Amino acid sequence: MSAHVENPGHETVAVIGLGSMGFGMAQSMKRAGLDVTGYDLVQPTVQRFVAEGGRGAGTPREAVRDAGIVVSVVVNAVQTEAVLFGPDGVAAAMKPGAVFVSSATMDPAVARSLSEQVEALGLHYLDAPISGGAAKAAKGELTIMASGSEQAFAAARPALDAMAAKVYELGNTAGTGAAVKMINQLLAGVHIAAACEAISFAAKQGLDLTKVYEVITASAGNSWMFENRIPHVLAGDYTPLSAIEIFIKDLGIVQDMARAERYPAPLAAAALQMYLAASGAGMGRDDDSSLARLYAQLSGAELPGQNKEPHKA
Amino acid sequence: MSAHVENPGHETVAVIGLGSMGFGMAQSMKRAGLDVTGYDLVQPTVQRFVAEGGRGAGTPREAVRDAGIVVSVVVNAVQTEAVLFGPDGVAAAMKPGAVFVSSATMDPAVARSLSEQVEALGLHYLDAPISGGAAKAAKGELTIMASGSEQAFAAARPALDAMAAKVYELGNTAGTGAAVKMINQLLAGVHIAAACEAISFAAKQGLDLTKVYEVITASAGNSWMFENRIPHVLAGDYTPLSAIEIFIKDLGIVQDMARAERYPAPLAAAALQMYLAASGAGMGRDDDSSLARLYAQLSGAELPGQNKEPHKA
Repeated sequence: MSAHVENPGHETVAVIGLGSMGFGMAQSMKRAGLDVTGYDLVQPTVQRFVAEGGRGAGTPREAVRDAGIVVSVVVNAVQTEAVLFGPDGVAAAMKPGAVFVSSATMDPAVARSLSEQVEALGLHYLDAPISGGAAKAAKGELTIMASGSEQAFAAARPALDAMAAKVYELGNTAGTGAAVKMINQLLAGVHIAAACEAISFAAKQGLDLTKVYEVITASAGNSWMFENRIPHVLAGDYTPLSAIEIFIKDLGIVQDMARAERYPAPLAAAALQMYLAASGAGMGRDDDSSLARLYAQLSGAELPGQNKEPHKA
Repeated sequence: MSAHVENPGHETVAVIGLGSMGFGMAQSMKRAGLDVTGYDLVQPTVQRFVAEGGRGAGTPREAVRDAGIVVSVVVNAVQTEAVLFGPDGVAAAMKPGAVFVSSATMDPAVARSLSEQVEALGLHYLDAPISGGAAKAAKGELTIMASGSEQAFAAARPALDAMAAKVYELGNTAGTGAAVKMINQLLAGVHIAAACEAISFAAKQGLDLTKVYEVITASAGNSWMFENRIPHVLAGDYTPLSAIEIFIKDLGIVQDMARAERYPAPLAAAALQMYLAASGAGMGRDDDSSLARLYAQLSGAELPGQNKEPHKA
C-alpha cells in the first residue's frame, strides 16, 4: 500500500483544541488552502473560527469524520489521551489511514504508548511537539520536533508545511520528538530561573538593571530566555505570555523521567522548587518571569513594578 | 589638578602577570604603540615577552617604576592583594597619579576595599574585570566591565583602548564592575551545568546528540554556553580551555556574596555542587564541559570519548 492510497483526503484537517496555539495553527492551515474543521470545548471559540471562514464541529467525532489529518492541540498527556480514547474520543471515528498529529509536550514513554494504541487501530501517529508561541502559530511559523513512521510523516505533510517554518524529523518512532522537546524544556526552565536569580541579585546589590541587561546580552552569560524574559522584569509587566504553571508541568515531567531513569538532574530540580514557590505565593498564572519577583520578595531586593497585584485570570 | 598633569607618562604600561590572558593583553598594548614592561613569577615567560620586543622586569616594583598604568592580570582577590601590598608589592613603588587596573574576578566588597587603600596613597584604581578568553586577549578584543573615578578612567584609557573591543563604563566607584562580572559568572556557571545536565540526559535516552545540538541551538532552550561548550562534549575533547576549578572559584564568590547579603541563590548553589563533584572525581583541571562526563558517570549514560583519562596538567 502506498502512502497515497492509505491517505485519501489528506488535505482535509481537523483541529482539536482552538486555544491560543490551536486557533492560530487552524488559521495557518486554512490560509494554506487546506479544508479545516475546528473543535473546542468552548463553543464560542468554534463560532469565532467559523466566522473567519473555517468549518466548525459540535463534537470531536464530528470534526474528524472526513479528516485525513487530525491535529491535537491540547495541554498535556492526560488531555491527549482523552481526545483519543475518552468519551467521544476520536480514535474510534477516524478514517483508516488517517494520521493523528499530537502537539502536546509529554513524557516520551506516554507518547510511545499512545502511538502503539493508535497504530493498532490502522491509523498513523505523529509525535510532534511544537515550539514558538501564539504569534508564530498564527503566522504558520512554528518549530515542530517530530518523530514517527514514514507513513505518518507523509500523511501529515500538508499540515506540517502549513503550520511550521521548521520541521525537525527526529526519527521513525514516536517518543523521540517528545524526548527532544523535554531536553529543550529542561534548559528553558532552568534558564528562566537562572535569569531571574541573576537579575534580582543585581537588584539586591543596587546595580543599574538596564545596564546589566545590556552587558549580559552581549556576554557569555547570555541565554535565549535571559534576552527574552528579562525585559518583562525591567518593565515590571508580568502579564502572562507563558505562565509559571507551564514550567511546573514541564519540569515535573523532566523530574518524573529522570527519576524513572535513575538520572540525577539537580539544576532542573532546583529550578522546579522556585516555580513551585512562585505558584504557592500566588503567581502561578502570572508570567514565568515572576520568579524575579519571588527572589525579590525572599531577599528584600527592589524591582520595577514589584508590588503589583498577582494576575487574576 | 587636571587628569593630564596627574598622569604624566600615561603611555608607559606595566603588566603584572603574563599568563594566557596577560601575555595577550601585553602584546595588544605593545602593538598599539604603548611602551610595555612585563613581569611574571615565571621568568622564562618574561624572556618570551622580551624576545617579542617587549621590556621585561625582574621584580614587580622594577616593572611599575616608570609606568602611568599598571595592569594586574592575576587570578583572584588574594593574588591582587599580594601584587599591591605583599612583599615587593607595587603600591609603594607606583608613581603618584598612576592608575592600577585590576582585571581579576572578585567579590565587589574586596574591590571597593582595595580601591580605597590604593586611592589613599595618591594613586587611582580601576575595577576592570575582563571577559573573552585568551584568543581575544591576543587580538585586543576583550570585553571589559569597568568602574572607577573619572581620573582612573582617563589615566587608563590608552590601555583600555588597546586591550578591548568593548569597555562598559558601569559607574564611578570600584566594585560595580566586579558586581556585574559576578552576575555574568553566576549565569555562565549555571548555564554550563544546565547544558551538561541536558546533553547527558539526552545521551541517557539514546538520542542523537548532534541532532539535539542542532535543535536546541535554534530553539528557546539555547544559551551562549550551550552553543559554545557542547561541541567539546560531542567531540569527547575535554582539553581545558576554561577549567572546572575556575567556576569553583567564581560560583564560590557568588555563594559568599549571596550568603553575606541574605540572598537565596539555589540555582547557583546546585551548579556549584556539580563543579565540586567533578573536581572531587579528578576533573578539576579539565575543561568545564567535563560536567557532562560527571553526569554520564553518575547515570550510566554514554558520551563520545567518555573513558578518556582526566587531563594531567
